[in-house]
Amino acid sequence: VLIGIPIFDGLTALDAVGPYEVLSRVPGVTGVFVASSTGVKRADRGSLGLMADAALEDVPHCEVVLVPGGPGVDAAADDTRLLSWLTAMDMTSVWTTSVCTGALLLGAAGLLHGRRATTHWLSVDRLAGHGATWDPSRVVTDGKYMTAAGVSAGIDMALTLSARLAGDNVAQAIQLSIEYDPQPPFGAGNTTDAPAAIVDLVRHVARRSNSVADGQV
Amino acid sequence: VLIGIPIFDGLTALDAVGPYEVLSRVPGVTGVFVASSTGVKRADRGSLGLMADAALEDVPHCEVVLVPGGPGVDAAADDTRLLSWLTAMDMTSVWTTSVCTGALLLGAAGLLHGRRATTHWLSVDRLAGHGATWDPSRVVTDGKYMTAAGVSAGIDMALTLSARLAGDNVAQAIQLSIEYDPQPPFGAGNTTDAPAAIVDLVRHVARRSNSVADGQV
Repeated sequence: VLIGIPIFDGLTALDAVGPYEVLSRVPGVTGVFVASSTGVKRADRGSLGLMADAALEDVPHCEVVLVPGGPGVDAAADDTRLLSWLTAMDMTSVWTTSVCTGALLLGAAGLLHGRRATTHWLSVDRLAGHGATWDPSRVVTDGKYMTAAGVSAGIDMALTLSARLAGDNVAQAIQLSIEYDPQPPFGAGNTTDAPAAIVDLVRHVARRSNSVADGQV
Repeated sequence: VLIGIPIFDGLTALDAVGPYEVLSRVPGVTGVFVASSTGVKRADRGSLGLMADAALEDVPHCEVVLVPGGPGVDAAADDTRLLSWLTAMDMTSVWTTSVCTGALLLGAAGLLHGRRATTHWLSVDRLAGHGATWDPSRVVTDGKYMTAAGVSAGIDMALTLSARLAGDNVAQAIQLSIEYDPQPPFGAGNTTDAPAAIVDLVRHVARRSNSVADGQV
């Protein structure tokens, strides 16, 4: 089972690496980081580079495509070769998936039309422009399309997907292996639980930075 | 505030990238990935490369040192230049931290002697060999030393550290930005909650692979 993970400058690193850490532990699964050209792509904070080992044309098929998001999504959505690759992967994929604003790339490729999906909470309004309906679940499954909410939701999605690929036992063994027993020190992980002033702060910073993606705090 | 993150072949990528994703969003913080030599280091699954932009000698001081773990820790613990660098960083650091079996590298550098600490659950017995006492908390703070349990615990540690560096409001804003509202599909994240058969499976696989680190499921 090959998992193709397209990356691009300005991606949010955890969108890609969180699910990779989970899915690459499923027996028989190989992940490949792919980009318009091979080489190091820079994550949105600038000081982390992820290596793309494969160019788009090196990966003619993959069972799972997993698209991360980040502020770089808008530029990536203008890359017609990337969109064509996503469309081609989707033709034979078993699962077509995204994390965070990666859903907007799937949308730009026309793959979410008429489907339920989710994305980063700051960007849910943009799903409708791609013909998708926002589902407020953290992980949304509609047929073979699985989309996750912002950034860290990709870990939950990947465990869900691991169970679908290899069964509950394998998914649970991976969860234990990565000791995923989350204990966030605050209860600010969604807009309902977070203090209103924090929600306003993150919205404000996101607007100011003109990032539609991740609220550059 | 400079956060130095030493990386090496065979690291567990999420150990480094999870905390980086959080801490790099703290205003005024810059993360730098550093290694014995610059260039791409391969994570433990092989198909993910992280770029080390700096060599050890390029980073003479950092306010925070954050050491990831992974199966590559044993080889890294034989790298006397790396251990010397860790010792030097610790002399002037504000925080000296680790995720997962990164604690064993801090230990090998002599930095955990007489301290409470934690590491990946499969490796807690190894802390005593470095003069440390295992504390079963997910994130352990002893003076300026902060250590996290396995892999995903680094995200919780980084939020705790963000609050110490910049206050609770900033930490909460980051939590909301990365939508860290964890909803694991299973309750198998620790050895108490996971089914006994799953714990046995992970222990068995870890022994078979001769990895002391991450239970190569």
